[in-house]
Amino acid sequence: MLSRIDETTLEKMTQRYRAQFVNSLSGYKSANLIGSISPQELTNLAIVSSLFHLGANPPLMGLILRPHSAPRHSLENIQATGCFTINQVHKNIHRQAHQSSARYPREQSEFDAVGLTPRFGDRLIAPYVAESRLSMGMELVRVRHLEENDTLMISARVVEVWLDKAALADDGHLHLERLDTVAVSGLDHYHKGESLGRLAYAKTGQPPLSLES
Amino acid sequence: MLSRIDETTLEKMTQRYRAQFVNSLSGYKSANLIGSISPQELTNLAIVSSLFHLGANPPLMGLILRPHSAPRHSLENIQATGCFTINQVHKNIHRQAHQSSARYPREQSEFDAVGLTPRFGDRLIAPYVAESRLSMGMELVRVRHLEENDTLMISARVVEVWLDKAALADDGHLHLERLDTVAVSGLDHYHKGESLGRLAYAKTGQPPLSLES
Repeated sequence: MLSRIDETTLEKMTQRYRAQFVNSLSGYKSANLIGSISPQELTNLAIVSSLFHLGANPPLMGLILRPHSAPRHSLENIQATGCFTINQVHKNIHRQAHQSSARYPREQSEFDAVGLTPRFGDRLIAPYVAESRLSMGMELVRVRHLEENDTLMISARVVEVWLDKAALADDGHLHLERLDTVAVSGLDHYHKGESLGRLAYAKTGQPPLSLES
Repeated sequence: MLSRIDETTLEKMTQRYRAQFVNSLSGYKSANLIGSISPQELTNLAIVSSLFHLGANPPLMGLILRPHSAPRHSLENIQATGCFTINQVHKNIHRQAHQSSARYPREQSEFDAVGLTPRFGDRLIAPYVAESRLSMGMELVRVRHLEENDTLMISARVVEVWLDKAALADDGHLHLERLDTVAVSGLDHYHKGESLGRLAYAKTGQPPLSLES
């Protein structure tokens, strides 16, 4: 038996309760660290749960940022340099990743503060997280202001991928369990994934079929 | 040791391989069924993995839809009626949910085709999925065309929530494991979550602390 929560009840929730509640409604979210660098070469690291797939061809990702909250240094760096990195959070670094959400001052790198290691490639000036097992180099495409709640939507193009090939299946699928990838729910709850299997491309007139993987 | 996949390799992938690969890069995604209805009262159901949290105050969700792919009937219904429902997929309905992605003709409801039950409330004309344990009623706020890859971003406001209160913690957080909520990775891989615990609000100068829950 389900309970109903109506609009008035939603409106009357305290700010903190509503933040926990509404952030839980969208289900499991991807946990990623955004690596960026300022023109003065100060590195920055911020955990985000708002990354989403925009499209495969061209390979594009989207990201929602609140202009006045903790990842604002990331936003300034992305706008100044036109690039950033996305680094998947796995089980062994999820506590350090969470800690990056504390409000460190501009001049302190979260890499040092939380104990993760910047790694630099040749393609972009933004730093990767050396401990991550799946990272993407991103070039900024566009920043949109979303008037409905004064947030920003970043769209960016994947220009390189770094990964542990143990996760890669023959058809291009990645087995996230093999990377110990973490999901986040609400604001602060972390989860490992447990596979229920893959399902074949759905066709009318046949039942859902399991895919061997 | 990580392997690098550069831009040229990404471009040379076959369309099918790249779809699998790039869809896997964004990590665990929320699995949800979008319920909608046409002005002629034909119900429609479509699984999406592109739902994301836009903000808690007001409570807003975002959704990416491809105008020419399977959920196009959902899109037409949402634009015609200004509303839809979001229904979380759990372990016991994930096969039916996946099957809703088959290309059923306009006049056939996916509810019937896959064996899920429409449930109607008083607040909206769009149908809920009776089997879901967490559902949201949504009012359309805006449809944006994203020029970078010809997709649409829907933003919508949560006007009511239906849930199994067994999942609700004292502070508003929802324990998704108690709902058997499913995550999806790539295009076709389903996962249960296994809790690694909650972490307290991060503060500079103190280590990441576990939250009792």
